[in-house]
Amino acid sequence: MSGPEDRSLELSGPALRDLIEAASKRILAHIESLPRQPAADTAGGTELARSLETPLPEAGRPAEELLELLFARVIPKSFNTAGPGYLAYIPGGGLPQSAVADLVSGATNRYVGVFAAAPGLAAIEANVVRWFCGMVGLPPDAGGILTSGGSLSNFSALLAARREKLPEDFLSGTLYASDQAHHSIAKAAMLAGFPERQVRSVESDERFRIRPEALERAIARDRADGLRPFFLVGNAGTTNTGAVDDLTVLAGIARRERLWFHVDAAYGGFFVLTERGRRSLAGIELADSIALDPHKGLFLPYGTGSLLVRDVEALKRAHALSGEYMPAMQEDPDFPDFNLLSPELSRGWRGLRVWLPVAMHGIAPFRANLEEKLDLASWAAEELSKIPGVEILAEPQLSIVAFRAVRPNLSEEGLSAWNRRLLARVNARARVHLTGTMLRDRFAIRICVLSFRTHRDRMELALEDIREAIAESELYQR
Amino acid sequence: MSGPEDRSLELSGPALRDLIEAASKRILAHIESLPRQPAADTAGGTELARSLETPLPEAGRPAEELLELLFARVIPKSFNTAGPGYLAYIPGGGLPQSAVADLVSGATNRYVGVFAAAPGLAAIEANVVRWFCGMVGLPPDAGGILTSGGSLSNFSALLAARREKLPEDFLSGTLYASDQAHHSIAKAAMLAGFPERQVRSVESDERFRIRPEALERAIARDRADGLRPFFLVGNAGTTNTGAVDDLTVLAGIARRERLWFHVDAAYGGFFVLTERGRRSLAGIELADSIALDPHKGLFLPYGTGSLLVRDVEALKRAHALSGEYMPAMQEDPDFPDFNLLSPELSRGWRGLRVWLPVAMHGIAPFRANLEEKLDLASWAAEELSKIPGVEILAEPQLSIVAFRAVRPNLSEEGLSAWNRRLLARVNARARVHLTGTMLRDRFAIRICVLSFRTHRDRMELALEDIREAIAESELYQR
Repeated sequence: MSGPEDRSLELSGPALRDLIEAASKRILAHIESLPRQPAADTAGGTELARSLETPLPEAGRPAEELLELLFARVIPKSFNTAGPGYLAYIPGGGLPQSAVADLVSGATNRYVGVFAAAPGLAAIEANVVRWFCGMVGLPPDAGGILTSGGSLSNFSALLAARREKLPEDFLSGTLYASDQAHHSIAKAAMLAGFPERQVRSVESDERFRIRPEALERAIARDRADGLRPFFLVGNAGTTNTGAVDDLTVLAGIARRERLWFHVDAAYGGFFVLTERGRRSLAGIELADSIALDPHKGLFLPYGTGSLLVRDVEALKRAHALSGEYMPAMQEDPDFPDFNLLSPELSRGWRGLRVWLPVAMHGIAPFRANLEEKLDLASWAAEELSKIPGVEILAEPQLSIVAFRAVRPNLSEEGLSAWNRRLLARVNARARVHLTGTMLRDRFAIRICVLSFRTHRDRMELALEDIREAIAESELYQR
Repeated sequence: MSGPEDRSLELSGPALRDLIEAASKRILAHIESLPRQPAADTAGGTELARSLETPLPEAGRPAEELLELLFARVIPKSFNTAGPGYLAYIPGGGLPQSAVADLVSGATNRYVGVFAAAPGLAAIEANVVRWFCGMVGLPPDAGGILTSGGSLSNFSALLAARREKLPEDFLSGTLYASDQAHHSIAKAAMLAGFPERQVRSVESDERFRIRPEALERAIARDRADGLRPFFLVGNAGTTNTGAVDDLTVLAGIARRERLWFHVDAAYGGFFVLTERGRRSLAGIELADSIALDPHKGLFLPYGTGSLLVRDVEALKRAHALSGEYMPAMQEDPDFPDFNLLSPELSRGWRGLRVWLPVAMHGIAPFRANLEEKLDLASWAAEELSKIPGVEILAEPQLSIVAFRAVRPNLSEEGLSAWNRRLLARVNARARVHLTGTMLRDRFAIRICVLSFRTHRDRMELALEDIREAIAESELYQR
């Protein structure tokens, strides 16, 4: 696009239009072909990775050639996280409407970390945060930030709790979450400086929900040992099975014990938009802070998390610091300076990638999609339970079902090995991609339905592939 | 775009193409008009912000209407951080090529936090990190991560240092940086749990570079007091004046004192691409870790930082934690799992927004732009020094010059107030936007040249406006 003598990085209008069109053309073809693409294909990935290594180029290459490389070779060689068959980990999908929002925000490159620098943009982002606070039932003066994902949301919540609940020498603080909590909780504790042994992994019940009695015992034991309980995490949809802790009971314990009550709703939070989800998540409105990930339950592209807090000033006390060279900050809490509520100073305009798709479509189709995912997970659990020898290890509480195939005369170890092979067989067909996890020393196969692209037709393929993989493995049984 | 009965969030091919084109059309017009746009316009920003507040919408609105609102009302009401006249804070510009990269990465929505999930994408991002390591002269086995910006880079560097240099009870650790360091260093310490009083603000010299003798005295004093010095920050381009500490001397002190040596090169780092910059930044290659921000010196949109570390394993020890439900991680250090090196798990594919513009243009025009910015800052300093009554407070070490107007018979306080009014007068013309800072109790006006869109013509307007603002203020002098 630029000759060797051209030192300008500014593309001409036509050249920029051509670049956008060249990308757009490939994106449209890519999305159109998603249903026919394999659910995952990473064979030869390491060789591909090696072949892409180049020294820092002095001269450029045509954009067409680079886009061709990306779409023909690089992007297809991956877990197809955007496709309808992706039922692994926690899907999301990645609404391209948000990608268009990113095109706008990157090309206009405004700075939203300080309200005064871009009041309208900051207001749109603050509005998105208020929508989320309203969804989960936090009071009107609650607030928060958009983050890059659940890990940083959990981390900032922990920092606020550390600041509010512990003295300067905080190292005797103890944290509580169930043995099903996401590892980003323990990681947040590590980043915040707590010794790993002070993160309590509290026993969960047969439905993988924290046992409140076990929690209370752990707190009492720690107090007796001179430690300082200060942070309690409730799961609103675990990664393993979608289990939802009894949030109302946890809120009561937190209040009595004067703990900060954080709800990790990164996966499950947006189900509050549905009737069933609201019932499952009852008590979430009692939290001091809530992590929820629009790149999961709102189907947005990766890189869109949020942290909501009841007391915005607590978040601010844990994060606010400024310099002489900075612009004036706001006094009005309606218009927060995001940099004072977050570890980040400069960062992109995340608000638009949430606001644009919600404003374009309204929330109704998001809710309808979430209803559909709940239905699909129930349906899958029912169909799985009809397969002889299949044991449901976790009935869906939200949109995840976990199961395994059982067979007499196999040890627990043998069963786990067999189910790993079953999973590999299902995934080898590449119509769906599932993943496994360990549930109390038993290997479980999980189906997590969360993409806006996953509908009944794809779930039927999933069940077909599971049935056939089991049938085949009976044939080749040792 | 969707009727009330349509529950699908998937736009049809034509509808998505229309959406991209509608955004594209406005982006092209916006960029074309940048030279004529005001350098900043936030009058009525609070009213605009209030007017944008809406409840969560149940139904959608046409995308055309939303884009029109954004481009006609929201985006213009801001600091024009993308325009040629933006000489405030630390500019960058925001190459739209990166915005196109974001369109691609958002619309294809791959997950790069784990190598196995998208080997080619992760490899491209790792390659970008290696380019950066090569630029600053780190050894071939160095590595790092892309972050959302300098604040998180500084934070992760500090975590690595805390883990490597301090015991589990780290609260007696002390950190050292000059009194010119960016506040994100003190903020990183706060987030990492250190008491604020343990961040030493070491005196700087007449050129705003740390005084090594003062540093050594502070370290000795802290050791004598039973504290544990562990982290030394060298500035490679301060935000106030672009001052570059003597990095070679600092590296020597860090080695003798067994401190982690971190260089905050968020603003200045990419000047190593130029001959003059390489001389100024000599010693940067001795660092244990380096923060540098592609959204500054590579002109990319906000949200693109990086952290480079000599010993990748140290970064990993400070950040690695995983769960049963996660995919297999890599053994091969050539192909890192970014989630193990960073606080983030899910996040967007940042690598592409660096890789695409560099691969399209080669590094040559980036270098040429940086050379030009160095020239422009020198030129501005020379022109300023010709204005009677202007005092240069900081000659450019990179691309920042700081100055003030002086006048006899005014107290220091009076001078600061007068210079604030001068700055307001320059900015009111809105052909350029400058900012001020405090340099040792003196209010200074800064010019920071860093956008790929700022050239000699705009700098001449800056000088013209400064000259006229001074002349006018002489007329109306008290």
